[in-house]
Amino acid sequence: MRTFEEIKTTVETGLGKHICDLKLENVQLVNVFSGEIYPSNIFVKDSRIVSIDPDVKLEAVEVIDGQGAYAIPGFIDAHMHFESTMLSPEALSNEILPHGTTTICADLMEIANVAGAEGLEVMLRSIEDLPYRMIIEVPSRVPTAPGLETTGAILDAHEVAKIMDWPESVSLGELDPSKILFVQEEYLHKVADTLARRKIVNGHAIGRHGQELNVYASSGISDDHECVTIDELTSRLRVGLKVMIREGSTERNVDELISGVLEHNLPTDNLMFCTDDKQVQDIRNEGHINYNVSKAIKLGMEPMTAIKLATINSAKHFRLEDEIGSITPGRLADILLVTDLNKLEPSHVFFEGKLVAQEGALLESCHSSEYPAWILDTVKLKNPITDQSFALPAKGTNKTTKVRVIDLVDKQIINRSASVILAVSNGLIEPSVSEDILKLAVVERYGKTGGVGVAFVRGFGLDKGALAYSMSHDHHNIVVVGTNDADMALAVNTVHEDKGGLSAVCNGEVLARMSLPIGGLMSPLSSDDVMKGVEIMNDAARKLGCTLPSPYMTLSFISLPTVPAMGLTDFGLIDVLQHKLIEVEII
Amino acid sequence: MRTFEEIKTTVETGLGKHICDLKLENVQLVNVFSGEIYPSNIFVKDSRIVSIDPDVKLEAVEVIDGQGAYAIPGFIDAHMHFESTMLSPEALSNEILPHGTTTICADLMEIANVAGAEGLEVMLRSIEDLPYRMIIEVPSRVPTAPGLETTGAILDAHEVAKIMDWPESVSLGELDPSKILFVQEEYLHKVADTLARRKIVNGHAIGRHGQELNVYASSGISDDHECVTIDELTSRLRVGLKVMIREGSTERNVDELISGVLEHNLPTDNLMFCTDDKQVQDIRNEGHINYNVSKAIKLGMEPMTAIKLATINSAKHFRLEDEIGSITPGRLADILLVTDLNKLEPSHVFFEGKLVAQEGALLESCHSSEYPAWILDTVKLKNPITDQSFALPAKGTNKTTKVRVIDLVDKQIINRSASVILAVSNGLIEPSVSEDILKLAVVERYGKTGGVGVAFVRGFGLDKGALAYSMSHDHHNIVVVGTNDADMALAVNTVHEDKGGLSAVCNGEVLARMSLPIGGLMSPLSSDDVMKGVEIMNDAARKLGCTLPSPYMTLSFISLPTVPAMGLTDFGLIDVLQHKLIEVEII
Repeated sequence: MRTFEEIKTTVETGLGKHICDLKLENVQLVNVFSGEIYPSNIFVKDSRIVSIDPDVKLEAVEVIDGQGAYAIPGFIDAHMHFESTMLSPEALSNEILPHGTTTICADLMEIANVAGAEGLEVMLRSIEDLPYRMIIEVPSRVPTAPGLETTGAILDAHEVAKIMDWPESVSLGELDPSKILFVQEEYLHKVADTLARRKIVNGHAIGRHGQELNVYASSGISDDHECVTIDELTSRLRVGLKVMIREGSTERNVDELISGVLEHNLPTDNLMFCTDDKQVQDIRNEGHINYNVSKAIKLGMEPMTAIKLATINSAKHFRLEDEIGSITPGRLADILLVTDLNKLEPSHVFFEGKLVAQEGALLESCHSSEYPAWILDTVKLKNPITDQSFALPAKGTNKTTKVRVIDLVDKQIINRSASVILAVSNGLIEPSVSEDILKLAVVERYGKTGGVGVAFVRGFGLDKGALAYSMSHDHHNIVVVGTNDADMALAVNTVHEDKGGLSAVCNGEVLARMSLPIGGLMSPLSSDDVMKGVEIMNDAARKLGCTLPSPYMTLSFISLPTVPAMGLTDFGLIDVLQHKLIEVEII
Repeated sequence: MRTFEEIKTTVETGLGKHICDLKLENVQLVNVFSGEIYPSNIFVKDSRIVSIDPDVKLEAVEVIDGQGAYAIPGFIDAHMHFESTMLSPEALSNEILPHGTTTICADLMEIANVAGAEGLEVMLRSIEDLPYRMIIEVPSRVPTAPGLETTGAILDAHEVAKIMDWPESVSLGELDPSKILFVQEEYLHKVADTLARRKIVNGHAIGRHGQELNVYASSGISDDHECVTIDELTSRLRVGLKVMIREGSTERNVDELISGVLEHNLPTDNLMFCTDDKQVQDIRNEGHINYNVSKAIKLGMEPMTAIKLATINSAKHFRLEDEIGSITPGRLADILLVTDLNKLEPSHVFFEGKLVAQEGALLESCHSSEYPAWILDTVKLKNPITDQSFALPAKGTNKTTKVRVIDLVDKQIINRSASVILAVSNGLIEPSVSEDILKLAVVERYGKTGGVGVAFVRGFGLDKGALAYSMSHDHHNIVVVGTNDADMALAVNTVHEDKGGLSAVCNGEVLARMSLPIGGLMSPLSSDDVMKGVEIMNDAARKLGCTLPSPYMTLSFISLPTVPAMGLTDFGLIDVLQHKLIEVEII
């Protein structure tokens, strides 16, 4: 929000009492308020737009000739988790800014599960000098599965209310419908506290319909970004939820949803764009929010409408239309120049009036933030991890036993519950590598309990070695999959040594490792280095026999205690729909 | 905003744990989020909509058959001053509710000028039990002309910030552009304090264009309700101001603006409807916001679009879309049933789930509020008013002198500055009744200074007697026009005796009087009685020779120190554009 002094400077500059910093002349202004495109000039002072009057003459320190290019507002990603990119905020700027994203609305639930409010503060401080803006959707579920997992921090209703008072906080992050449908009071308090601050509540209405959807919406939810079909989109609008149309790495909803909106001639004033989770490689290859926009235009949406979905609609939704989302007086000067409204690859990107990217690249790479030592040292093991840590004693004395197996489902985040017979040797249940029945374990890594949950998984395809990763949603303990207990222990200990990260080991040797020391989730390296690193890790996994396209991404989601059928935490195996611990062995 | 307990009740009712208060079945739901109209049922509990799912079966205490009528959200008047109606909040309910207005966004600047924050509180308390909602646009100019008038109260930036914290306060009321263009810091503070609370600033960009409009918008203004031409409307949208399209008693903008919007195919997501100032008689004859809507539809606007302008668009603008503006789960159940979308005269009006009006009439007339004694006793004269109070001594010793005259302009609020020669008798300047040059005076009525401003006016046409009124914008001292000083004194003293109101006197006798004791502005009587009373007063004025259509309304606006060319306050005659006191006599 603007201070008195800032408002005064803007006004006085418009009155000619100060010299503008920038005159961006000779542009075709894409005006998302009036729906018009017309020739004009844009005057900027101290990050704010002073005037867009085509006839006014104001002095400016710098004049940039737009050469008739379209000037459109900087794009807004209405919902994303940036920790999943493994990039630090400074590295992310290299990827999203050249594509024109100047504001991200970030649900920082990953770092919050690791480090609570202090973790959010670190992220906010790290972005302070960067040429894009981060707005916070305050994580509503820290932990995601209370009573079933150990997390680094807990954000209870009281803590959430305190964070909600921060100026950067604009909403309560995607609230799980089950919390409402089971009338969990803590979450109703979080909603009430958010609404009382005139902020909004983001939804997450995945797979909900009919009366369940009505009840969910009735609690005060404002939006949903989980629509996959046009029927779902229509049903969300009907109950008063706005819809964020998502195009991420795996969840690709623009095609079906935009086609449906056009076909059914649905109103677009309640629609926005988001990415949710998009891998760096995909951002680099395709684009970011500009990809959503240009895809929508290709599908037949008017460019003005598609641009509104990526700008003013999100700004209004988050009640920030006096700050961002349009090129109009008083707003922050986030401006893109594009020569082709169908392509939307900006030739110039201005953030708060400063030219920060040109022709697909940052003008200056962003220097690394100084992270406090503690956030670089969050991976703590209470007890040493050895091969014994993963032993699974059988209950009886038989040579075989029946166990539950988490069965991967191709290209989906959900899994199935299967049962198989496994051998028992020396009283311990053994995996069956030949049948791809491997051990999966989650090791508590906050130094709190030393708990290790062990189960079986099918689908990774390893024929030797083990893979470990300290990003395991949403608790972010260390998850490890392996063919033998010794390699699993080494994989975990390697991640521990690296203060978080990824490891691939085989026969007692570390094949590859990559450190993610920022909260155990993110790398301080450049996006190029991170992309290379991930490729090396995936290659190593493939060498161990893994057939999955993104082995570590699968590993990071397989343990989720909130996605059916089963999850695994440091507490043990979880029946997701029953929300309770279950035995691995079926007796 | 909803409390935790309220949210819990809504959610639990949707889950079948409580019985609904109301099932409104068999309606055609006009869904302003999805833009669709379809058959459904509406379930309500404790003032909130629980579900609009067509298939759900929930128990309800009362079932009302909508008989296939359209169910549309209650209308919102985005900007109005209700004190100008002379009605108390309870009497106003009788007029606006049957026409379907369930929410008014009220800039209470009149009562604020009389009684400050305490006056606003009285109004809020008086509406508490009434079947409509008042949202406050916190008056930005109390007083309107600082240093040039005495008011009952002053709302400085500090005071405004305190009021802005009230839950009912949603915006800073229409801010005068000159305050921005002259960089008056107090007003910039008011803007900054409002934006810091995530609330908006209402504009009043009357007659502003080009760079002035850019500068005005750049200060953080959000809207304008003063557009008269389509060019003005377009220019407001271009600078990022939303537009409230007004249809009041005298300012009738729907025809030109809606026609222009349709002709130029302008986007409608930044448009709303308001009345600003609409007299009771006009509301009764034509309607209220429903009149704006049906007029827009007659001009060719889609009914769904026109209804959005009167409902969800205003709700979003004031950042209340989670509370009002749509018939969707969780929102307050303000619902109108109409059988003809082209007419929009509701057969049933529900406010917060209760049927309150049917077939053009309230079900129960609203009982009168208990007003605190002090708000009924605000008209105080510091000194007795006699004929000497209005004496205007000439400066020289000539038998005639040249004076300035406030010249009324037919059907407009502005006036012209004229000059005439008047006789001087016993050293005092005399009016010239035969030429319609009458004395106009403003008598300070807060018991503070005893000041009396005296000048001349042309256009009332009185040939005898005097008229007085305690509503004189925006300071609301007693304004009086007359042919002779004695009748002027009697007229003022009559208004004083009545603790505010209107009077007409002739030759030492009171012809008619009407008391407005609530702040000296409003009557405690019913709307019928007030309308009758105004007719009697206007008749009396006509008997005195007045030829104006609304003599007292003209009287209430003629003294305004902010509308060119001249104004009159208890300080004296004012040159509006120069914002300074001037002499009546031209020497």
